[in-house]
Amino acid sequence: MIKKYSVKKLLNQGKFLLNKKVLVEGWIRSFRYSIFISLNDGSTIQNLQIVLSTNNKLDKIIMKKITIGSSIKVIGIVKQSIGKKQYIELQSLDITIYKLVNPEIFQKSILQPKRHSFEKLREQAHLRFQTNIFSCIMRIRHHIAFSIHKYFHEHGFFYLHTPIITTSNCEGTGKMFQITTMDLKKNQLIDYAKDFFKCKTYLSVSGQLEAESAALGLGKVYTFGPVFRAENSNTSRHLSEFWMIEPEIAFYHLEENINLAEKFLKFVIRYIVENSMEDLIFLNQCLEKWKKKKKNSLLEKLELILKFPFKKISYTETIKILDQEEKKKNIKFLHPIIWGMDLKSEHEQYLVDKYFKKIPVIIFDYPCSIKAFYMRMNNDGKTVRAMDVLFPEIGEIIGGSQREERYDMLLQRMKDTNIDFNKLWWYLDTRRFGSVPHSGFGLGFDRLVQFITGMNNIRDVIPFPRTPNNADF
Amino acid sequence: MIKKYSVKKLLNQGKFLLNKKVLVEGWIRSFRYSIFISLNDGSTIQNLQIVLSTNNKLDKIIMKKITIGSSIKVIGIVKQSIGKKQYIELQSLDITIYKLVNPEIFQKSILQPKRHSFEKLREQAHLRFQTNIFSCIMRIRHHIAFSIHKYFHEHGFFYLHTPIITTSNCEGTGKMFQITTMDLKKNQLIDYAKDFFKCKTYLSVSGQLEAESAALGLGKVYTFGPVFRAENSNTSRHLSEFWMIEPEIAFYHLEENINLAEKFLKFVIRYIVENSMEDLIFLNQCLEKWKKKKKNSLLEKLELILKFPFKKISYTETIKILDQEEKKKNIKFLHPIIWGMDLKSEHEQYLVDKYFKKIPVIIFDYPCSIKAFYMRMNNDGKTVRAMDVLFPEIGEIIGGSQREERYDMLLQRMKDTNIDFNKLWWYLDTRRFGSVPHSGFGLGFDRLVQFITGMNNIRDVIPFPRTPNNADF
Repeated sequence: MIKKYSVKKLLNQGKFLLNKKVLVEGWIRSFRYSIFISLNDGSTIQNLQIVLSTNNKLDKIIMKKITIGSSIKVIGIVKQSIGKKQYIELQSLDITIYKLVNPEIFQKSILQPKRHSFEKLREQAHLRFQTNIFSCIMRIRHHIAFSIHKYFHEHGFFYLHTPIITTSNCEGTGKMFQITTMDLKKNQLIDYAKDFFKCKTYLSVSGQLEAESAALGLGKVYTFGPVFRAENSNTSRHLSEFWMIEPEIAFYHLEENINLAEKFLKFVIRYIVENSMEDLIFLNQCLEKWKKKKKNSLLEKLELILKFPFKKISYTETIKILDQEEKKKNIKFLHPIIWGMDLKSEHEQYLVDKYFKKIPVIIFDYPCSIKAFYMRMNNDGKTVRAMDVLFPEIGEIIGGSQREERYDMLLQRMKDTNIDFNKLWWYLDTRRFGSVPHSGFGLGFDRLVQFITGMNNIRDVIPFPRTPNNADF
Repeated sequence: MIKKYSVKKLLNQGKFLLNKKVLVEGWIRSFRYSIFISLNDGSTIQNLQIVLSTNNKLDKIIMKKITIGSSIKVIGIVKQSIGKKQYIELQSLDITIYKLVNPEIFQKSILQPKRHSFEKLREQAHLRFQTNIFSCIMRIRHHIAFSIHKYFHEHGFFYLHTPIITTSNCEGTGKMFQITTMDLKKNQLIDYAKDFFKCKTYLSVSGQLEAESAALGLGKVYTFGPVFRAENSNTSRHLSEFWMIEPEIAFYHLEENINLAEKFLKFVIRYIVENSMEDLIFLNQCLEKWKKKKKNSLLEKLELILKFPFKKISYTETIKILDQEEKKKNIKFLHPIIWGMDLKSEHEQYLVDKYFKKIPVIIFDYPCSIKAFYMRMNNDGKTVRAMDVLFPEIGEIIGGSQREERYDMLLQRMKDTNIDFNKLWWYLDTRRFGSVPHSGFGLGFDRLVQFITGMNNIRDVIPFPRTPNNADF
């Protein structure tokens, strides 16, 4: 039997396969001079050059029929290429056509080889996996996901599947999707005792509270799953359904949490730089062409994340810096700088992009009034052990905290912030059994993919985006 | 600074740490003779023995206060142990108590060290991570998940996040959960134009159709995410929310799909045997004690999966075998054996457990009338290129098929089976662009965990199970 190779493997091992007979399958990306086929199979951004033989009868028939986008199987001999673009090429012996694409249909699709807008690609989301740009992003997305599992696995974390269907709202804020099996058409009185779970249920916005209870037994855990927000946010940075990573660690104080966030992010970005270089280079070329960005801007941006320690400053220091900058440098923020305020994008951007010259910043010890009930209160009674990691370009990429592990303090905070502590009895209950200092954070996976790939719109880094008014495909 | 160790690391590296000062944190699992503390931190099933000093004033105070379940930090010197159970122990120098557990509360909880029923553990699901049995299962669950990502990553698959919120029902059967942001209390006419996505939306039962469109660009992909079934199945094998793995591969015929399924399952089980032995041994001991199973029955069951090639027979052969067995051996199945019937558990169990003596069986080429619309029709016009992998004990663990890649055939099948092909326009559309032979399968992750851990009830292998009438925690 003739051995089957992916295009990636064939190009990587080509040197050792010269004059060998191999089998390869894929889609035709271009067809030049009636003899050169560029074949791609999704395994890499690179194409394999197939050379048809003008002496071969079968090939002559093929030449007349072939259309771009068609799918074929090729058996051929690996040869050293005369062209400069590739080291090897495949001299065709036998071609089987799986499906010839109708050129008329093809021309109306996003597969036609010319530049299409990202909006148009989204309208044909079922086909965009066949485009260079989107397959690049999907491969990088895979490597980011894998590196995340790898990091946590190697550092003794256990992967935890927290429930998607839930009766509680972790943050106590934000709109949620409701789930039901009741027949809504019937216009009858809604009786939750007759619903599937015998109560009102929602799609989870976070697995943190469940992850905390797991960390209090397993030590170190992390979640990596979908979460949902029913906010009417039609922006380039929001999805109604997105993937989140939430590590949670027993015996961790905020300082260790901050260190973990930095090490973890650097590990992932280093992994991508080391394992997805071809795809990064292609994306760089696209950004240069389409957005007139300077050469290698994407790679330089990533290298900058790796090069220096992240800046770490308290919220109070942050306010001081912004206040001083406003006074000294004649900058005027839209939102005035007052201790106690939530930081807006304009502040975060100024801080990271201007003040710290694109080095990531970790801000900690935020006012309790602007943070969630589960964060550990500091002795000052005003601030909590919160932390946000701010990245250049995209702003907040991680939000986390040391959790309130003291039963009485937690209960008080729940009361103060109108959290239904009867519903969360089990969460509170974990503080009665061997409660320990513990910390964790949440990372929006899609936003990280957006940062690493340099895409403007988060809808272009996830296979089938869900946003207000849109659940297509 | 004194270096912090997990119990696992300390026990593993103990030999090289003799007489070193180390820091370790965890929960007290037992306290004997007023000087021996067994400490566990979730990193391993093993406990670390802490030896209190009767000369140390601080330790004397501690001795009086300490309760089982409490959380502590210990600084101590690593010593060779005199006991036989462990190689090293920790001579305490300084102990910090994080939280002393009230013995009264403790005694009412599942943490009290005696045997509790699995039902009771489920009622306190937020605490069961602190029990030996459940922490074992959770660690194994992690290793299974990691080995799955590892396998696909190393074999050139890309991890794909298919949407959870969907407008379509892949199988064309089965009840789904509906999602909405409408205020259901108001008892008004339901108008989906006013709903979040401007149409009726559901929780996905499978990511297969989307994965197919991705495989037609990326070559090899796999999903690993939650799926949902609103069936009223209150059994030990069903969850309303569970995790599924769905690889999908372009240019794969059924035979390659079958081989992939076998190699993949063997890889995962081998990985667990090689990486989770301590936890498997503990589970084995529990099964011996609680269910009177014979020694190492769990390990032997897993070894049997690895030892022989899986049996591969067609549906038609299966029917013949069952028919012959019924006649020859005086067995009477409840459901009579007729070609065209769906195989019931009694048939599958007989086939795997009795006829093939607990070696997994892969049955292929099922009648089209009992399988989904997307499976590739055979030339006989009666059977489709379906495959099911049957395991001993649990029955079907994988269901898959070669997909119908021919536009006309697929459209006809959709019509014949009343699938709304207007809604699935995009799925059909992929067959107009470089369509190729492709295959894939679905594996219920939780059922695999159930098989590997030997648990009777699937609710005991997932952190917070969702089943009819139950969305607690």
